[in-house]
Amino acid sequence: MIDITHGIAPTNVLQGAFVLANTLPYMPVGVHLAVVDPGVGGDRKPLALRGGDGRLYVGPDNGLLLVAAERHGGVEAAVELAEPAYRLEPVARTFHGRDIFAPAAAHLAAGVELAAFGPPVPSADLVRLELPAPEFGTRRVRATVLYVDRFGNVQLNLTRAELDQVGIEPGSQVEVEAGFERYFAIAAATFAEVRAGDIVLYEDAYRNVALAINQGNAAEMFGVVVGQELRLTAIDA
Amino acid sequence: MIDITHGIAPTNVLQGAFVLANTLPYMPVGVHLAVVDPGVGGDRKPLALRGGDGRLYVGPDNGLLLVAAERHGGVEAAVELAEPAYRLEPVARTFHGRDIFAPAAAHLAAGVELAAFGPPVPSADLVRLELPAPEFGTRRVRATVLYVDRFGNVQLNLTRAELDQVGIEPGSQVEVEAGFERYFAIAAATFAEVRAGDIVLYEDAYRNVALAINQGNAAEMFGVVVGQELRLTAIDA
Amino acid sequence: MIDITHGIAPTNVLQGAFVLANTLPYMPVGVHLAVVDPGVGGDRKPLALRGGDGRLYVGPDNGLLLVAAERHGGVEAAVELAEPAYRLEPVARTFHGRDIFAPAAAHLAAGVELAAFGPPVPSADLVRLELPAPEFGTRRVRATVLYVDRFGNVQLNLTRAELDQVGIEPGSQVEVEAGFERYFAIAAATFAEVRAGDIVLYEDAYRNVALAINQGNAAEMFGVVVGQELRLTAIDA
Repeated sequence: MIDITHGIAPTNVLQGAFVLANTLPYMPVGVHLAVVDPGVGGDRKPLALRGGDGRLYVGPDNGLLLVAAERHGGVEAAVELAEPAYRLEPVARTFHGRDIFAPAAAHLAAGVELAAFGPPVPSADLVRLELPAPEFGTRRVRATVLYVDRFGNVQLNLTRAELDQVGIEPGSQVEVEAGFERYFAIAAATFAEVRAGDIVLYEDAYRNVALAINQGNAAEMFGVVVGQELRLTAIDA
Repeated sequence: MIDITHGIAPTNVLQGAFVLANTLPYMPVGVHLAVVDPGVGGDRKPLALRGGDGRLYVGPDNGLLLVAAERHGGVEAAVELAEPAYRLEPVARTFHGRDIFAPAAAHLAAGVELAAFGPPVPSADLVRLELPAPEFGTRRVRATVLYVDRFGNVQLNLTRAELDQVGIEPGSQVEVEAGFERYFAIAAATFAEVRAGDIVLYEDAYRNVALAINQGNAAEMFGVVVGQELRLTAIDA
Repeated sequence: MIDITHGIAPTNVLQGAFVLANTLPYMPVGVHLAVVDPGVGGDRKPLALRGGDGRLYVGPDNGLLLVAAERHGGVEAAVELAEPAYRLEPVARTFHGRDIFAPAAAHLAAGVELAAFGPPVPSADLVRLELPAPEFGTRRVRATVLYVDRFGNVQLNLTRAELDQVGIEPGSQVEVEAGFERYFAIAAATFAEVRAGDIVLYEDAYRNVALAINQGNAAEMFGVVVGQELRLTAIDA
């Protein structure tokens, strides 16, 4: 058993989905159990999936699992967790992590076939998160906060190549607009290139662009939350 | 080794006692070590207990272990952890978790007999938490906060059946008084039945009634703490 | 694998160094991986050390490892982690914990020789933390906050013997100056000797003097942070 994190913000499915997708390349192929489940007890289905690379996923049908599965070989098969034999009865209406998902993951790990857990769910019927796309302008880009880590670093839906495309390269000065506030950041490869307290735009360890304050907490300072938009503008030297 | 939680609020013995009691049915029979120990270094005894169902408990004699033990077969035997051979000497005066409790749990798990740890403690001498009882009126009940989880959901000393008894049934509107503030809640079986931001009174996964805000943090909004009283009144439709 | 903590404050190398040094006597000899790494991606070296007692250490060359190593047999050999075969390529510029340090620790644990990881680093070239020394006056001492634990207890760079030396003994009243604020504390052996809410100066479980509020959070009340100075003055009875 490898415990990736208990640090996902309550109800933040998007954050959970990206942490799972980002972490998986560093995890052995196995049964991946993930639960961020604001719809527990409603009509969202409990799911198990098999990915193209042999990974098995267990969790709610709210998009949490799909970002990871689609980055790692796609979904080969999906079933609804309906079989009472693989649940912990009675199932509490507000804690399927304990009574449906964890028991299913344990039975999968013990070798029970995916098909035994319940009826197949067509891939097209799986719930997908709406992933925001960045909007590009002339020397500017509008990006969305995907998640905030425990250091307060703010990951955006943006790659290094996309930043280059609007003319923001390592060393560039960048104006960051968050709501009505404006800040000045520097595009850099590492924190070591800037001073303590500087605002940095950098490619993070998952190959997304992120905004940070060197030795500080950017999310707190900017007051940003997951899903919020930031506007980045290259400043002419 | 299964690590249940490091999230109990400092000095909150009541919260620790309920988390232990609630979690135990999902744990194999074993040696259960729990430490919430504001009286460390004083005259509270360090204890080991054997329960009627074969579970062994280690922790301070402040009531932390007894809620669990009494729900799971009662206390069959209790001893004071007095034998220096099973301590880590020198024992720090403020960290018995490290120097007395964890070594005792390890020796118990390795097969040392309970009686070897020290003199027996009569069951009647064990310290018990004073568990508040709800007070029932006409279509109203006064309940006490037992604990607050990491979602900010507020568990009360109340069961579904007791709520029914005062006329609060699924679908009922309920007035909640917390200090001088009043809120309106809806009795519901799951969060999925109400809208985001609604206040919900529901039976939680441990079969206690709890108060929550759907996709929000009820404890923060109500400003409640463990031990505080709330008054719930059924509202006529 | 024993996971000591994920609770070190971001960028707080001093706190990490003391937690590692304090915890090690309770850990088996093994490979000790520690990462608090504000200089990641800069010119600070990634290190592996072998201690005189056979322990192996992996982490950044910023002083994090040396407090522990020097307390436990000293540094016998040190190398820079330069060998690409023991890294996870491509190495992210901001997450050496994942791509350099953890793989090195795993390879060391699997039996790879220290010398295989890269060129030796002379002991004199290793980066050392500047550890503040207490300053002693007549019946007073100026001490520095080394770390703050999750209870808000404030560990100082001071031993019981040093307190005795300035006339602060168990039972003494002590004036504590933190910035412009003054508080009155009592020197005590355990929390059980004082009332809830009392400020206590005590020898903690790692044999350092610490400041706490019985059943409260001293760091929050005093508003102190790691590295801050406090002045303690014995008060005549």
